[in-house]
Amino acid sequence: MQNPVLVEVTRGQMVESRHRGMAVVVDGDGAVVMSLGEVEAPVFPRSAVKSMQALPLVETGAVDRYGFGDRELALACSSHSGEPEHMRLAGDIVARAGLSEADFECGCHWSFQQQVLIDQAQAGGKPDQLGNNCSGKHAGFLCLSCHAGVDHHGYVEYDHFVQTSVRDVMAELTGTALGHDNCGTDGCSIPTYAAPLKSIAHGFARMASGTGLGPERARAAQRLMAACMAEPWYVAGTRRACTELMQIAPGRIFAKTGAEGVFCATIPEKGYGIALKCEDGATRGAEAMIGAVLAKLFDDDQELSARLGDWSQKSMKNWNGIEVGVIRPAGALA
Amino acid sequence: MQNPVLVEVTRGQMVESRHRGMAVVVDGDGAVVMSLGEVEAPVFPRSAVKSMQALPLVETGAVDRYGFGDRELALACSSHSGEPEHMRLAGDIVARAGLSEADFECGCHWSFQQQVLIDQAQAGGKPDQLGNNCSGKHAGFLCLSCHAGVDHHGYVEYDHFVQTSVRDVMAELTGTALGHDNCGTDGCSIPTYAAPLKSIAHGFARMASGTGLGPERARAAQRLMAACMAEPWYVAGTRRACTELMQIAPGRIFAKTGAEGVFCATIPEKGYGIALKCEDGATRGAEAMIGAVLAKLFDDDQELSARLGDWSQKSMKNWNGIEVGVIRPAGALA
Repeated sequence: MQNPVLVEVTRGQMVESRHRGMAVVVDGDGAVVMSLGEVEAPVFPRSAVKSMQALPLVETGAVDRYGFGDRELALACSSHSGEPEHMRLAGDIVARAGLSEADFECGCHWSFQQQVLIDQAQAGGKPDQLGNNCSGKHAGFLCLSCHAGVDHHGYVEYDHFVQTSVRDVMAELTGTALGHDNCGTDGCSIPTYAAPLKSIAHGFARMASGTGLGPERARAAQRLMAACMAEPWYVAGTRRACTELMQIAPGRIFAKTGAEGVFCATIPEKGYGIALKCEDGATRGAEAMIGAVLAKLFDDDQELSARLGDWSQKSMKNWNGIEVGVIRPAGALA
Repeated sequence: MQNPVLVEVTRGQMVESRHRGMAVVVDGDGAVVMSLGEVEAPVFPRSAVKSMQALPLVETGAVDRYGFGDRELALACSSHSGEPEHMRLAGDIVARAGLSEADFECGCHWSFQQQVLIDQAQAGGKPDQLGNNCSGKHAGFLCLSCHAGVDHHGYVEYDHFVQTSVRDVMAELTGTALGHDNCGTDGCSIPTYAAPLKSIAHGFARMASGTGLGPERARAAQRLMAACMAEPWYVAGTRRACTELMQIAPGRIFAKTGAEGVFCATIPEKGYGIALKCEDGATRGAEAMIGAVLAKLFDDDQELSARLGDWSQKSMKNWNGIEVGVIRPAGALA
């Protein structure tokens, strides 16, 4: 089976580039609502599953002990742009457990958002670990470890309490055996596990619907997604896709991207879980795909569906501001 | 026909993302040496054909009038990184025709190379048109116009003398009718024309071999490619693919990338022209493909072939410097 072309990039009147992808939507029972491409193939979900990775933080009571509100929970589930307020809050979170920037093990990088990078460089700043796009997740990991009374050093390692806790939750949610065989190392140094795309979607459908989850986990999942939908800027940042999608339909869409063209989402009111991957790893492809998939799933709300459809198409302008083409859903998503 | 997977991106022991592509190698007579994927499909070559676009500059005698050496010719064929010396030389070139930065019509952008951008922002600088990656080509266009006694204003427009000169040369080299039907607007605002990938490769084979060209054009083509091979840093910049490929085999490979995953090259000693495009537009895909294609074409020089093969594989490290995967040729290019 080939993954179909789901997004095309035009120039003038012609198609210049094409993005193939796989996308699947399931309900809490795992029944397939929509399926395109190789949805049984294993995929590294990367940062798209940060809300799953944050479940132990909620379930153990760490979030209440350290006084996390919606913003802190949203940041724990985020891939943020490293804007000053993102960095401030990441530092504030670990300070509640008596820790600081030096305790993070995620590494440093300049913001992926050019304007944030330029602002920081012009102000004489430079990246530290609080600016790592994963620092919110790592702040949560550090708090989880401290709350459990476990030495936080090496919390990114495969056998550390933090990572075994995360692995157990994700294996249960996705119904997939996770171990060394399907493990890679993520950008921020923690293990990431490849699972069938459909199983990842099913995990999100379980979170959205509570189906098959114990009451404590169902509440924790609901609490995390509600926090992200309430504070979407903390999940990504200014003009970022996750933030904009959750702003388009407040409380009705939870959306989270992952590196290499992954996008996951839930529609709580329908109990749907969504997972997709752009075959070539392109963010622009994944963004157009998730907008188009969500537009189709809201076909019972024409106004919302139209707004999502508009969002899924991006005009491309050149350095003189001339429109030269468009990135748009294609094929089954057109 | 589907474009085959030619590059894969791994994480741990698994393949995480895949790049499909089309690639074709022909000789001066148009005989096919290698062909993968939809090589008759029209492709916007974008900046990969800057050496073709510079031919009128040489053929009209403008380069001699303004005293261009290898560095100026290489910059006229370049997509440079906007490093200070690139910007200085672009300004110097137009000054010879009595013009300045304000006369460019390419627009401004920060360097695509992060370190160059950071250096400029930290030094309190900001982009001007000399830093546009196409400023060398535009400097050549301005000189062409001035040398011909044509008002340079609007030199980026479809009907301006500069663009009709460029279009005529490219139509003849590629044997393709170029006009409004297959025209798009490039990032720097000039027209770009889609032509079958094989026709683009044939154009480069004509440049490399002189086959079918008049003596003046054959000399001009040879002079431009020789300048690029002699001064490869001016064609791209520090740690850039075009520069590195021409440094690996001095005088034996001419290579030039274009936006949206295009790479073109010639092997002068064999008279080959090469054109390829990564279907999804990814630069990382196109770079691995051109390295692998060149490695195969130099199978009669095992040491060079091995160096090109090594170059075509890139280790990917995360923010802590841990190797997490590799970008490598796959399928027919493995």
